[in-house]
Amino acid sequence: MSPMRRWISLAICLAVGAAIWFSPVPEGVTENGWHVLAVFVATILSFILRPYPMGTMVLTGILILVLTHSFVDETSEKPSKEALAYALAKSYGDTTVWLVVAAFLISGAVIQTGFGKRIALVLIRLLGRTKLGLAWGIGAAELVLGPFVPSNTARGGGIVAPIVDSLCRTLANNDEGKRRNSVSSFLILTGAHANLITAAMFLTGMAANPIVSKAADEVADVNFDFVTWLSGSIVPGLIGLFLLPVFLRMLVKPSGIDVGAARGKASDELDAMGKMTRNEWILLGVFVLMLSLWCTARLHGIHTTVVALGGVVIILLTGVQNWKDMAKNHAAWDAMIWLGGLVMMAVALREFGVITWFAENAKGWVGEFNPLTATLALALIYFFSMYAFSMLTGHINAMVAAFIAVAVGVGAPPLLIVALLAYFSNLCGSLTHYSTGPVVIYFGMGYIEAPRWLKIGFLVSLFHLVIWLGIGLPYWKLLGWW
Amino acid sequence: MSPMRRWISLAICLAVGAAIWFSPVPEGVTENGWHVLAVFVATILSFILRPYPMGTMVLTGILILVLTHSFVDETSEKPSKEALAYALAKSYGDTTVWLVVAAFLISGAVIQTGFGKRIALVLIRLLGRTKLGLAWGIGAAELVLGPFVPSNTARGGGIVAPIVDSLCRTLANNDEGKRRNSVSSFLILTGAHANLITAAMFLTGMAANPIVSKAADEVADVNFDFVTWLSGSIVPGLIGLFLLPVFLRMLVKPSGIDVGAARGKASDELDAMGKMTRNEWILLGVFVLMLSLWCTARLHGIHTTVVALGGVVIILLTGVQNWKDMAKNHAAWDAMIWLGGLVMMAVALREFGVITWFAENAKGWVGEFNPLTATLALALIYFFSMYAFSMLTGHINAMVAAFIAVAVGVGAPPLLIVALLAYFSNLCGSLTHYSTGPVVIYFGMGYIEAPRWLKIGFLVSLFHLVIWLGIGLPYWKLLGWW
Repeated sequence: MSPMRRWISLAICLAVGAAIWFSPVPEGVTENGWHVLAVFVATILSFILRPYPMGTMVLTGILILVLTHSFVDETSEKPSKEALAYALAKSYGDTTVWLVVAAFLISGAVIQTGFGKRIALVLIRLLGRTKLGLAWGIGAAELVLGPFVPSNTARGGGIVAPIVDSLCRTLANNDEGKRRNSVSSFLILTGAHANLITAAMFLTGMAANPIVSKAADEVADVNFDFVTWLSGSIVPGLIGLFLLPVFLRMLVKPSGIDVGAARGKASDELDAMGKMTRNEWILLGVFVLMLSLWCTARLHGIHTTVVALGGVVIILLTGVQNWKDMAKNHAAWDAMIWLGGLVMMAVALREFGVITWFAENAKGWVGEFNPLTATLALALIYFFSMYAFSMLTGHINAMVAAFIAVAVGVGAPPLLIVALLAYFSNLCGSLTHYSTGPVVIYFGMGYIEAPRWLKIGFLVSLFHLVIWLGIGLPYWKLLGWW
Repeated sequence: MSPMRRWISLAICLAVGAAIWFSPVPEGVTENGWHVLAVFVATILSFILRPYPMGTMVLTGILILVLTHSFVDETSEKPSKEALAYALAKSYGDTTVWLVVAAFLISGAVIQTGFGKRIALVLIRLLGRTKLGLAWGIGAAELVLGPFVPSNTARGGGIVAPIVDSLCRTLANNDEGKRRNSVSSFLILTGAHANLITAAMFLTGMAANPIVSKAADEVADVNFDFVTWLSGSIVPGLIGLFLLPVFLRMLVKPSGIDVGAARGKASDELDAMGKMTRNEWILLGVFVLMLSLWCTARLHGIHTTVVALGGVVIILLTGVQNWKDMAKNHAAWDAMIWLGGLVMMAVALREFGVITWFAENAKGWVGEFNPLTATLALALIYFFSMYAFSMLTGHINAMVAAFIAVAVGVGAPPLLIVALLAYFSNLCGSLTHYSTGPVVIYFGMGYIEAPRWLKIGFLVSLFHLVIWLGIGLPYWKLLGWW
């Protein structure tokens, strides 16, 4: 970005923030709450205009709020220290933020040891006897890694995409001219869209998912933790992952190439990796242990984040990864900084009355609606509003809390609207070729032109809606979510 | 470390921790407090035996305490989540921990831009007309960088030591055989010992200093913040830095080499660096701004950590360092993890009654003493007990809280004992050639043999005691600290 454009973008964010900050504070909102809203809106806007990375803008936002003592009332004797203590405790002391940090740290070991790559190759060799099988193998790899690699970019773009690319090149006999064939299109699209389904399935499937979980807690008083998230996504998610290749095959009609070579390539790469190392076996054990503990949380009560920290400690004590290498996993600290700041702002917005005020007013704006119709309408608007965003994370941050508030205001079943928004937050990434890291990476490999990607993306989005509404709605009814 | 030795070390830590954990809980201490003490002692012991890096052991300690619900009482309905929330909020949500993290992030930019190196070279060129002048230049570089580079290893070992080494090589005409001469010894010893004086002078001069500050707060109710710390250290610190080369010249008797070449070398290196870049000018501005705000905190009330975060944000927004590079500063996150966990344990020890219990009992153990005699005796024991440790950080963590508690128990003036232990925590690093990172690095350059380093180190320790007691005590009396 040119310095000029950067400064203009930054000025727009500041201007919007200042406009809110200095406008009259509505009744029912505290002045502090209003100021948090101003900085929150400016921060979210900066995620869209992107003058700087998210970490920079979140730290700037925190600094402004602390310097203006926006977290403490006027009677405070040490306003600077108290405002800072509030900001830090609610951000970098938050349990959900540390779930993501821990999962990031674990995924670093999964990537460094090659265990993630091995999982993908094993599944592709296992399932890849046909074109459909290859695609299912890719989806299965995404599914297994989903809970443990919370950067969907690291999972899709870092682990799976290079393998898919290598399969496609093998299928084209490494002939650059033959690379853009129908089978490659099929596999590339499967990789990209499967990544979004697994991102939707797990609280730890995408770095910004905890934002939805936090908003559910703060706005709708809904505890949408790891198990709840997964219990709602498991059925439509698995069906979606299974049918995605079938649907894409209809659209792309892959033909003319025998995929045996691809499976052979996966097999060769696996052979080249040799036997499972001690470290990979330990990681497999950690995966099984963590997933078991996560899914049985209601029996033993160990918090999801504690389980994840346990995984981190096992990895460190067994020497699968040493602390020095783990501390170098900068993606974890990046996520901690931006996610922590946003989580803190979400908490402050509720604590200072902004959410209640917004929800109260939303009732008036939206008027009388059948709650279920309103819920579905809001969910669909949320889904397709992604066209106006360049990034899933920005979309989630900008919209999700407000949409939950409006929906609850018009009487939507809280769990239903949270579930719809949680899953749609990731599935809507199917719409464009620039919605999130792995999509950008798959698209950037150059197998598919932008217009075609957009067209197929739109059809895949309808496919998602059919499954997640057609099967999801009855299923969630069964769960008692509405 | 061999796996065998590693497991034995770990087993010793676990055994000691378990012995405390399962021994009868003394009256006046809660069971939770006793468990925190057990894990705290095992963690500190692990810093000395070092089966794993500090980050690994601290995370393990936190995990054990959270899994055993040691931070919540039995009535808690969600003990796992509440224990985790307590642990995270008191560690990674702590304001002092983030002072160190922010300073680490700033020092990353100081190193990356070469600004730290330039400061050192400028001061050496400015002052280095004689042997003494060269040494003062080295001390001045340490002094200027002291407040901003909280890893004394990064400051001494990373910025200053390579320059000192290069000066020494120049003085020996790059002749390996002539490298170990008296002038080199003089400069190397100055570099190592000046680093310890500046580490003692600033709360942000050494990564573990906040442990002292936190212990002062928790144990003696003394607010030993950046300004208080510096107001007590500025007079003996500056005198010590000024006289150190004079004292070392007496011991080493550097002679026979004209130092003009060294100053010329510094000058050449400066010329090679070219003019101050825009980024360096901005960093200079950040230094001046931060130091001004830190030292005038009582006028404007902005918390030290908020000022440091301001420095971070300025560096990011001006592009002196971008967020991606800053997030890669793993030393900052390493420090956050271990320092945060220890700070949390210190808080828990007080909140659960362990500190009060220890201090009450210490009175009985120590018996009746003149409080001032006892204070000095404790401070000296603390100082020379460093001989039994291999690392300043381990020494501080193991001893400082207990020593403050005992001293306060026998009626020591709280500010005085805190000051003595704070400064001695770093100055005692003079005793050995392996006490802390930069000392290890200077020693490891091979200019001085171990027996000689130990002998001179002992004499330097006496030099420190003469200054910090002979001048420090009357000066702190003037400040009203006793």
